[in-house]
Amino acid sequence: MAGTVARVTEITARSDTSFEDAIRVGLERAGSTVRNITGAWVKEQKVEVSDGRIVAWQVDLQVTFVLDD
Amino acid sequence: MAGTVARVTEITARSDTSFEDAIRVGLERAGSTVRNITGAWVKEQKVEVSDGRIVAWQVDLQVTFVLDD
Amino acid sequence: MAGTVARVTEITARSDTSFEDAIRVGLERAGSTVRNITGAWVKEQKVEVSDGRIVAWQVDLQVTFVLDD
Amino acid sequence: MAGTVARVTEITARSDTSFEDAIRVGLERAGSTVRNITGAWVKEQKVEVSDGRIVAWQVDLQVTFVLDD
Amino acid sequence: MAGTVARVTEITARSDTSFEDAIRVGLERAGSTVRNITGAWVKEQKVEVSDGRIVAWQVDLQVTFVLDD
Amino acid sequence: MAGTVARVTEITARSDTSFEDAIRVGLERAGSTVRNITGAWVKEQKVEVSDGRIVAWQVDLQVTFVLDD
Amino acid sequence: MAGTVARVTEITARSDTSFEDAIRVGLERAGSTVRNITGAWVKEQKVEVSDGRIVAWQVDLQVTFVLDD
Amino acid sequence: MAGTVARVTEITARSDTSFEDAIRVGLERAGSTVRNITGAWVKEQKVEVSDGRIVAWQVDLQVTFVLDD
Amino acid sequence: MAGTVARVTEITARSDTSFEDAIRVGLERAGSTVRNITGAWVKEQKVEVSDGRIVAWQVDLQVTFVLDD
Amino acid sequence: MAGTVARVTEITARSDTSFEDAIRVGLERAGSTVRNITGAWVKEQKVEVSDGRIVAWQVDLQVTFVLDD
Amino acid sequence: MAGTVARVTEITARSDTSFEDAIRVGLERAGSTVRNITGAWVKEQKVEVSDGRIVAWQVDLQVTFVLDD
Amino acid sequence: MAGTVARVTEITARSDTSFEDAIRVGLERAGSTVRNITGAWVKEQKVEVSDGRIVAWQVDLQVTFVLDD
Repeated sequence: MAGTVARVTEITARSDTSFEDAIRVGLERAGSTVRNITGAWVKEQKVEVSDGRIVAWQVDLQVTFVLDD
Repeated sequence: MAGTVARVTEITARSDTSFEDAIRVGLERAGSTVRNITGAWVKEQKVEVSDGRIVAWQVDLQVTFVLDD
Repeated sequence: MAGTVARVTEITARSDTSFEDAIRVGLERAGSTVRNITGAWVKEQKVEVSDGRIVAWQVDLQVTFVLDD
Repeated sequence: MAGTVARVTEITARSDTSFEDAIRVGLERAGSTVRNITGAWVKEQKVEVSDGRIVAWQVDLQVTFVLDD
Repeated sequence: MAGTVARVTEITARSDTSFEDAIRVGLERAGSTVRNITGAWVKEQKVEVSDGRIVAWQVDLQVTFVLDD
Repeated sequence: MAGTVARVTEITARSDTSFEDAIRVGLERAGSTVRNITGAWVKEQKVEVSDGRIVAWQVDLQVTFVLDD
Repeated sequence: MAGTVARVTEITARSDTSFEDAIRVGLERAGSTVRNITGAWVKEQKVEVSDGRIVAWQVDLQVTFVLDD
Repeated sequence: MAGTVARVTEITARSDTSFEDAIRVGLERAGSTVRNITGAWVKEQKVEVSDGRIVAWQVDLQVTFVLDD
Repeated sequence: MAGTVARVTEITARSDTSFEDAIRVGLERAGSTVRNITGAWVKEQKVEVSDGRIVAWQVDLQVTFVLDD
Repeated sequence: MAGTVARVTEITARSDTSFEDAIRVGLERAGSTVRNITGAWVKEQKVEVSDGRIVAWQVDLQVTFVLDD
Repeated sequence: MAGTVARVTEITARSDTSFEDAIRVGLERAGSTVRNITGAWVKEQKVEVSDGRIVAWQVDLQVTFVLDD
Repeated sequence: MAGTVARVTEITARSDTSFEDAIRVGLERAGSTVRNITGAWVKEQKVEVSDGRIVAWQVDLQVTFVLDD
């Protein structure tokens, strides 16, 4: 049963359009550093507001990736 | 005060487009089994990733439905 | 270091289109009462269902706003 | 050691007199569907208010019942 | 969809007779300041003891009230 | 500032009439062992059911008592 | 994407040998009622003691099973 | 038993010297708006860092104050 | 209804073979001080590691024992 | 592996100068009753306020001490 | 006081025999990347089921290792 | 919007003088490995005790640092 150990790492990502775009932004950046990402859990969702407008949609993600043997 | 007892049941639903579509998918499936669904609470949100792309948006829902007398 | 104290207040907002619209609805209403909102944390997400259809997307938000000196 | 597996199911019950009456209402309704209820844990307690008066005492219960072999 | 935004505020109330009386005391006081209270969630229940006797039944309530447009 | 240290101890108490009676039963028993009880926090509330009837109202209490100098 | 909705149900199972045996006992009993169990999460682990000896190893499991279309 | 209802409100305060100073800053600002503050619970503690140095000690406080009759 | 009050006390126990042995070790030690232990809840499970090997299996237990009348 | 069982007990301690002093006050008092204290976890931090001034810094501690064989 | 800073990292490990074997598998893999592992906390325990049989015992571990100076 | 992804990593740091010194020690060590630390959240606070004296003030920190593009 190879590849049975995975790591979970936490990232925070922001987008100026939506939470779902922020998830994509975060996973893309994470994917440039680690291989074999298998999923992510949305731990928190926040918005940043300035002058009454939402200027950032922010997610905290727990990203899981399988470790190479 | 008839119909004052409701049940809460947990389901997991997935969509390949968005979390909100996953909620609709889950409620539709739940509605084929039980009647009188009144709402749902989003307990968890996760994404599944393969080859660097999000292949499923998954929600864990606590679905409430009123019990018939 | 002026303006270093902020308040956090909880609101519940609903939309008939999406969670993200509910967040906008809630922040707009909050912004009519308090100034200097800097952000909000999404504490809960729920949907209301009637006759098998989602009739409201509801969010509980913890809204932060800086207090004037 | 027969009968060693139990199920836990969540219900919401309301009464217009008290939380304790709501627990009785919920257990009575649950008992019309399943046998061998052994207990319940009070997960949440809420009141509904209308025109300044409490119109419903509501409990969320985790009800345990032993499964037949 | 008017009146879709509500506020949630936390109060602590005490009674010398019971938790349920403390809830009534708290909601009555809250109702003298804000309108349109729709409900309350019982967050905590405590008793104060003096000379071996319970001298106060205390509840922490999260009170919800709808904001006027 | 004498007597500024208190201990917190957890007990479980049952009554066949109500949660509030169970709290009294628990505090009375605790008071036979320790002095200077100042309060208790209701951590959990459960009921035991037999043959469809509630046979015990059970509370888990965190009891606080001031330590003598 | 067929079969994308799963249910999560909670059971309590006991064994007189070990927690891991209790998990097997619980899953076996659950499998006699529902099909397509895909996994379980161990929510709680308890032991029952009598005369100073452990007489039961008990687990609370959240069991997931895929719903047929 | 006058004055038996209190409100709990959440604030965030910062200091450039310590957490305890941040608590004092927050209570001082809160005290300029409400009377009869009786205490505060430290909900979170954070530091802000810039160029490797701590530039702010931040606390989230739940402040309790007794409501006038 | 004699013997209806129980105490809950927390202990930490370690074994060099397994978590289940640690539970036995803890209950044995607890049983040398208090009578009438009825059960224990496993609150935490940890391992201690030295030179890449597990040198201790540690459990935090909430032990319940009935108080004598 | 002697002395492998420890107890965890909860105390509340107050100081009129700081949280860290309250921790020292609490451990000193606990040390007058039990031997072999190995550590403490800070569970809560609160302040008491009177006339706008902090009159007590209070900590809730989970104190661990090794049991003699 | 050298070596006083440690890192905590989360891994997920699976075994086809038991939870305790999964812990060993995870720590072994972690030990091939980092030195000076001092312990691990078992955050979650899950089983994977296929055709009614447990095919994997999975643990989520928070692994602590001391950082070199 | 460059630099919108941050990582969150957990460290444990100790000092023999105070919690605040432990935070500084931890951030200094973290800063020798990663750049662009923007803050830290205090997750836990513990003390180690030996012979009745506090010998270490320990903090668990969640450290956030912005990832380079």
